[in-house]
Amino acid sequence: MTRSWWGWGDTAHALTDDECRGLGAALPDPPADPLPIPRVEDLDLRAPRIAPPVSLAHLCSTHAADRAAHTHGKAYRDVIRALHGDLEHPPDVVARPATEQDVVDLLTWAGEQHAAVVPYGGGSSVVGGVEYRGDEHPAAISLDLTQMDRVLEVDETSQSARIEAGALGPRLEEQLKPHGLTLRHFPQSFEFSTLGGWLATRAGGHFATVETHIDDLTESIRAVTPSGVIDSWRLPASGAGPSPDRLLLGSEGTLGVITEAWMRVRPRPTERASASVRFTHFHAGLAAVRTIAQSGLRPSNCRLLDPGEAMYSGAGDGTTSVLVLGFESAGVPVDERLAHAVALATDAGGVPDRPREANSEPSAADTWRDAFLRMPYLRDGLARMSALVETFETAIVWNHADALYDAAQRDLRAAIEEICGAPPILNCRLTHVYADGAAPYFTVIAPGRRGDELRMWDEIKVAAGELLAAHGASITHHHAVGRDHRPWYDRQRPEPFAAALRAVKRELDPQGILNPGVLIDQA
Amino acid sequence: MTRSWWGWGDTAHALTDDECRGLGAALPDPPADPLPIPRVEDLDLRAPRIAPPVSLAHLCSTHAADRAAHTHGKAYRDVIRALHGDLEHPPDVVARPATEQDVVDLLTWAGEQHAAVVPYGGGSSVVGGVEYRGDEHPAAISLDLTQMDRVLEVDETSQSARIEAGALGPRLEEQLKPHGLTLRHFPQSFEFSTLGGWLATRAGGHFATVETHIDDLTESIRAVTPSGVIDSWRLPASGAGPSPDRLLLGSEGTLGVITEAWMRVRPRPTERASASVRFTHFHAGLAAVRTIAQSGLRPSNCRLLDPGEAMYSGAGDGTTSVLVLGFESAGVPVDERLAHAVALATDAGGVPDRPREANSEPSAADTWRDAFLRMPYLRDGLARMSALVETFETAIVWNHADALYDAAQRDLRAAIEEICGAPPILNCRLTHVYADGAAPYFTVIAPGRRGDELRMWDEIKVAAGELLAAHGASITHHHAVGRDHRPWYDRQRPEPFAAALRAVKRELDPQGILNPGVLIDQA
Repeated sequence: MTRSWWGWGDTAHALTDDECRGLGAALPDPPADPLPIPRVEDLDLRAPRIAPPVSLAHLCSTHAADRAAHTHGKAYRDVIRALHGDLEHPPDVVARPATEQDVVDLLTWAGEQHAAVVPYGGGSSVVGGVEYRGDEHPAAISLDLTQMDRVLEVDETSQSARIEAGALGPRLEEQLKPHGLTLRHFPQSFEFSTLGGWLATRAGGHFATVETHIDDLTESIRAVTPSGVIDSWRLPASGAGPSPDRLLLGSEGTLGVITEAWMRVRPRPTERASASVRFTHFHAGLAAVRTIAQSGLRPSNCRLLDPGEAMYSGAGDGTTSVLVLGFESAGVPVDERLAHAVALATDAGGVPDRPREANSEPSAADTWRDAFLRMPYLRDGLARMSALVETFETAIVWNHADALYDAAQRDLRAAIEEICGAPPILNCRLTHVYADGAAPYFTVIAPGRRGDELRMWDEIKVAAGELLAAHGASITHHHAVGRDHRPWYDRQRPEPFAAALRAVKRELDPQGILNPGVLIDQA
Repeated sequence: MTRSWWGWGDTAHALTDDECRGLGAALPDPPADPLPIPRVEDLDLRAPRIAPPVSLAHLCSTHAADRAAHTHGKAYRDVIRALHGDLEHPPDVVARPATEQDVVDLLTWAGEQHAAVVPYGGGSSVVGGVEYRGDEHPAAISLDLTQMDRVLEVDETSQSARIEAGALGPRLEEQLKPHGLTLRHFPQSFEFSTLGGWLATRAGGHFATVETHIDDLTESIRAVTPSGVIDSWRLPASGAGPSPDRLLLGSEGTLGVITEAWMRVRPRPTERASASVRFTHFHAGLAAVRTIAQSGLRPSNCRLLDPGEAMYSGAGDGTTSVLVLGFESAGVPVDERLAHAVALATDAGGVPDRPREANSEPSAADTWRDAFLRMPYLRDGLARMSALVETFETAIVWNHADALYDAAQRDLRAAIEEICGAPPILNCRLTHVYADGAAPYFTVIAPGRRGDELRMWDEIKVAAGELLAAHGASITHHHAVGRDHRPWYDRQRPEPFAAALRAVKRELDPQGILNPGVLIDQA
């Protein structure tokens, strides 16, 4: 597999120019041709401003291809900038530690140089989390952890595994499989994101209810900070002071470099059942999902797609909202729970789809999942046609969820049309649900003007961020804060907590070299 | 109801002298009479060293009864010291704020005086959490929150309630009841502990699996710190940086005074089912509980009592271990889940008790629960007979649980016999279970020598703490750290995390007036 330096995932899955034109046909007067993909050798990258010492040279690369691939994350604005050849802040060095001692040595060297260090897992950040943009450091080092990708220990009795932070999703699962175990954490970025990245960003995963965030699957964490190694005890639970792990979860590389963790794993599911239910009105679907989330049935999948999202993903015809329900278990039958959940959805006005025969056409659930995994490649294809295509997500208590959805469809849609001069596609689905609220996920597709895509998207992003803040909704449920969410995160986190976080950063990273600009400013 | 100033709970439930003698009969040569209960007016309390300003006088008391009742928590060592009239460190003032502004004003005053402030909820700490023992402050103020006990808002749609921190368990539930809602957090101290106390100590509650710690029931927290008010947004979940709430959860009054919180509540259960299963060998019971905890069945009660604990609580005859299983739900049938759990326990070698007829004798579960709630009063009665009677609890991964239990029954039992000159009662139960481990809870009863009880228990406590540390078990699952657990907590928490916590304390409590000596030292 060849990783794309400019866009999502595997170059083999990138859309061809003709496929891009085909997608573009859906846009009002699209450009005739997709943006060409710049050749790395044509990029005018700033020359590296530091050279690694001999002792670390074997871990470091200054090749243009490495530096280009580590310049951005994978947000729309990253892809667009790459396509326009705009790589303003490439790292000077890409370092690939193979051991914790390598991490320690690299941090020591960076400290001596006062170089910024950006911990880098799969590079799938969509919030500017891996791109150092400052100028108060003489150089920037991208610390790529993917060489540290082993499952080091498996405790089958405790259903726990000690895993290096640089393991990409598939690599991690392939090592657990011989033990009959799985982490069951499958974010959309699964193939191209790492355990360390999931922990540092509080990723949301596979389960639609209960244990959705990686936080809940974490038994203990080990991290290297410039002030020493943090290594918490393996404990199923503890009441001994604030949780050390919870300080690292969501720290986004600003406090330390997560090198490994004991994670809670589980047997691979043997029982599965799924169904889909359709709703004429999205709000009826919301009410149904709320009832199910509050029922204690704990479905593993409980995704509500609004009509546009359902159509867009092939799970519906655009006239109805679709609720995709799934239950899974290792050993305990799930059919009764599914039946109960479907009954609750029906009581709320839903119409269940007829259960499929074996070998019949794929279900709404299957169709949606395929589209889900294909989506980032389509996003890149649309971006090459200068469309604006991006997502934003949030979490909000049930009591305000209907109002947020309505405001998005009314005010945000209007704002986007104003910016783009044409009505956008603005779809929504619930990715995760809780007893007290839900995580709505919005997809925006709108025609852009070539060369002006970035400014246009940034205007939309501001409108979206303001919408969320006005409704008391989180700036992010699982995409993290990075640099792009700072204006709204700075409003969301309590000021004394920000002061506390800065105090922690001063203590653990006194030189302020770890991912500067993310979450908080050194002060 | 009259609260006992020296012992547990309601004076009406305290044992009579004759009842104490009756209990004492079970001890090898017990004293003829129980320790008398000192009269408050006979206590030689240090005179108050500080007087509240006129503006705060209406919130403050310097009465001996108030000061005596706020001098200690409710640990065995607290009760023994009170019975011997040893109240070395009484607070100079007991302050009872009625509003958040009162809390702000009291902290301001305390800051001006550089007086230590000990946040005080129900006063049920068993780890020296509410007793300021230092001398670096000219005075100590016990900040009793119990006047702030209202449910301020209920969001029935989101199944959340905004509750003042000083609400004792029954007060909180009685205000939720008209809404058909409940927090379902029932620690043993339920009647005499507060929401704020539960949050500050990361209390473990009603549910034996999954959502056991108060942490999981918390939507947002509001706290007053000397550096300002922390108020997190109401969110069902968030991926925006480390959780502000998780910094306050377990902070034990060292970072701020929790004034209110939005808590996740739920409908009162309508479906209930319970059963008990007996095991010849405790380790077979452990294996059964592990299988159930890893099954995803999520029982609300899953308590394994070893033979001694079962006999002691009337749930068994001392020859077998007893597993008490319970399921509950609002609306979803639970019988199938119970049957499945009982089947798993049977596969592991357990023998289910015959289901009871209606109106038959109480079940092992009922019997155990009654003893559970009566226990603290019996503890006080035994203490008055100069017995050593105390508990310690922990959490440990399954892989090390059997070894910990065996070591306790072998080495700790021997150590206690050495200290007391007679074999102790040393019982164990699992209070909470997780997929990756369990929370064993030990009860120690041994004959003490009058006047020497404290030193003897402290020796046992050291042996117990060392046992836990040697097995990588937490110094506490839900009793918190306070002052008494510091030696082992200081080993458990990673050193850089302790440095981070000190940095946070310097930031939020620059004068170091909040509960000094708990968790960390100012530095």
